[in-house]
Amino acid sequence: MDFTISSLDRSLENTIQHKINLKTKPVGSLGKLEKIALQIGLIQHKTNPQLKHPTILVFVGDHGIAEKGEVNPYPQIVTKQMVYNFLNGGAAINSFCIQNKIHLEIIDAGVNHNFDNVPGLIDAKIAYGTKNYEIEPAMTINQCNNAIAKASRIVLDTFQNGCNVIGFGEMGIGNSSAAALLMSHFTKIPIMECVGAGTGVQGDAIKTKKRILKTVFEKHNPNSPIEALTTFGGFEIAMITGAILKAAELKMTILIDGFIVTAALLAANAINKNVLDYCIFAHSSEEQGHQKILNFLEKTPLLNLGMRLGEGTGAAVAYPILESAVSFLNNMASFEEAEVTTNE
Amino acid sequence: MDFTISSLDRSLENTIQHKINLKTKPVGSLGKLEKIALQIGLIQHKTNPQLKHPTILVFVGDHGIAEKGEVNPYPQIVTKQMVYNFLNGGAAINSFCIQNKIHLEIIDAGVNHNFDNVPGLIDAKIAYGTKNYEIEPAMTINQCNNAIAKASRIVLDTFQNGCNVIGFGEMGIGNSSAAALLMSHFTKIPIMECVGAGTGVQGDAIKTKKRILKTVFEKHNPNSPIEALTTFGGFEIAMITGAILKAAELKMTILIDGFIVTAALLAANAINKNVLDYCIFAHSSEEQGHQKILNFLEKTPLLNLGMRLGEGTGAAVAYPILESAVSFLNNMASFEEAEVTTNE
Repeated sequence: MDFTISSLDRSLENTIQHKINLKTKPVGSLGKLEKIALQIGLIQHKTNPQLKHPTILVFVGDHGIAEKGEVNPYPQIVTKQMVYNFLNGGAAINSFCIQNKIHLEIIDAGVNHNFDNVPGLIDAKIAYGTKNYEIEPAMTINQCNNAIAKASRIVLDTFQNGCNVIGFGEMGIGNSSAAALLMSHFTKIPIMECVGAGTGVQGDAIKTKKRILKTVFEKHNPNSPIEALTTFGGFEIAMITGAILKAAELKMTILIDGFIVTAALLAANAINKNVLDYCIFAHSSEEQGHQKILNFLEKTPLLNLGMRLGEGTGAAVAYPILESAVSFLNNMASFEEAEVTTNE
Repeated sequence: MDFTISSLDRSLENTIQHKINLKTKPVGSLGKLEKIALQIGLIQHKTNPQLKHPTILVFVGDHGIAEKGEVNPYPQIVTKQMVYNFLNGGAAINSFCIQNKIHLEIIDAGVNHNFDNVPGLIDAKIAYGTKNYEIEPAMTINQCNNAIAKASRIVLDTFQNGCNVIGFGEMGIGNSSAAALLMSHFTKIPIMECVGAGTGVQGDAIKTKKRILKTVFEKHNPNSPIEALTTFGGFEIAMITGAILKAAELKMTILIDGFIVTAALLAANAINKNVLDYCIFAHSSEEQGHQKILNFLEKTPLLNLGMRLGEGTGAAVAYPILESAVSFLNNMASFEEAEVTTNE
């Protein structure tokens, strides 16, 4: 469970920036694409980085809190149903991964259903859903460590298959509640300001969601990042935390999706701050807490399209922008190569 | 030169929106992608629209004002040099079009150079650069109409080759000055607030640019959209205006790039307001006037990546988002198809 994560080796920074500045365009005129190109170059420690075998891992888990249906407009059974939808290619993340040639894997982190070795699903089940944190911690320390270890193994397999750019998605009815609790724990922003609509809680129901989560937050007092994950987490969230840590250790470029994944990143960041060096933020979710986490981390995402779907869809839709960044860095001519006069 | 542009036939709106709402996701959770999917469906008058043979036409022209070098940090010869760079595949727009499988055409609208039938370049030259609008209108009415007609013909050819989604780019040292003048004319925003850095004018030079363009703006008093194009335009800008009008007439989806292209759109919009129904705004340029034009048109673009390069690069980088919109509309399962429980 120990991850050795180096801070970014910046020794090529001037070389890469110089290469960017010599391209046939006004200096700085590709804006954020230039920053992304530099970051990926530094991550890969190359002046000609390549994005290889892009992959999104979608972790799925159920939440004890969701069985009562007070914090979630969709019933818990939707988690299981959506796994089959993923496997049958019918979900949003399937469309976007096919479109952008991203390899997609679905992982049972802890769905409240026996999938019985259904083809295409990676079995990493910790349990049939978490416990209800209204009563007790969502999982045991052992389960949490197990989730991190299993996710770490899956990321290693992905890396060994040739992947160097990875995103994470999630599905789990009730998981915006877990994310709000983790957000409040790690950012110190009051829990009432962290709770949002999730899949579409409205009106009185959002008041109920806030009231319940405030009580939950005040009931517990976790003393470490792992304890926070153990108390509030979903299995899918703990796995994403582990996956982020492992991907950073392996020096992969990590595309961070929306609210839930960023909450998992908060835990990873609390464990090792160097993870942020490897992260590119895909989009700003409509889920109201997400922008606040991004502000806390002082990060600006690539996209702001009003999406709030989860599944890693923000990462999948943003991925071509990473390709654009790498593409211009590798393929554009310099002023000298193109025999174009500079303005100096 | 007369274009017959229908306003959008909205008769399928409820049907398409219903199809979007039945997809396996919370209603509205794909944000702007849902709006784009609806718009493309309405443009094509289909519940299952397709993006075919995406094409970007880059129009290139020189500007009389640029010969003195007071408004532009790069010398005029760079326009010609960049044409060769485009033809050799070395420019930013080449990288992004190859990446996103967009067909790219380069058009000589009026470069101050004899290309002598160089392969790969579409010859639509009106003249060897415009006149200097410090002294006289940039072109004659006849030249302006000719530019519109030639661009219209090129768009028709593109359409007949199977293209139904088109973007426009431009190159022309000095053309941010022309765009600022057109912007002020069509939006009534004072010229001093329309002038920006272009390819990188800074400090005292930007004061000079503003002073010169204020004098130019006050010298002329064009009385129609065509007269405004004639007075302030570049040949490439007039061509883009014509290209937008023709693409809207042909009910193509039009991806609007940055400052210069949006200035050309202002002229098209002044000629026929229905063009806006067919436009999707790709990105918000760092060129300071662009956001003001977008506000004037009450449009929010897809991307805000701090780019200010021109060439149609914003359109090319944004194009995959259109594909995402069409992809989810056509490929995602409905709740019923996927046997997923709704929240109703």
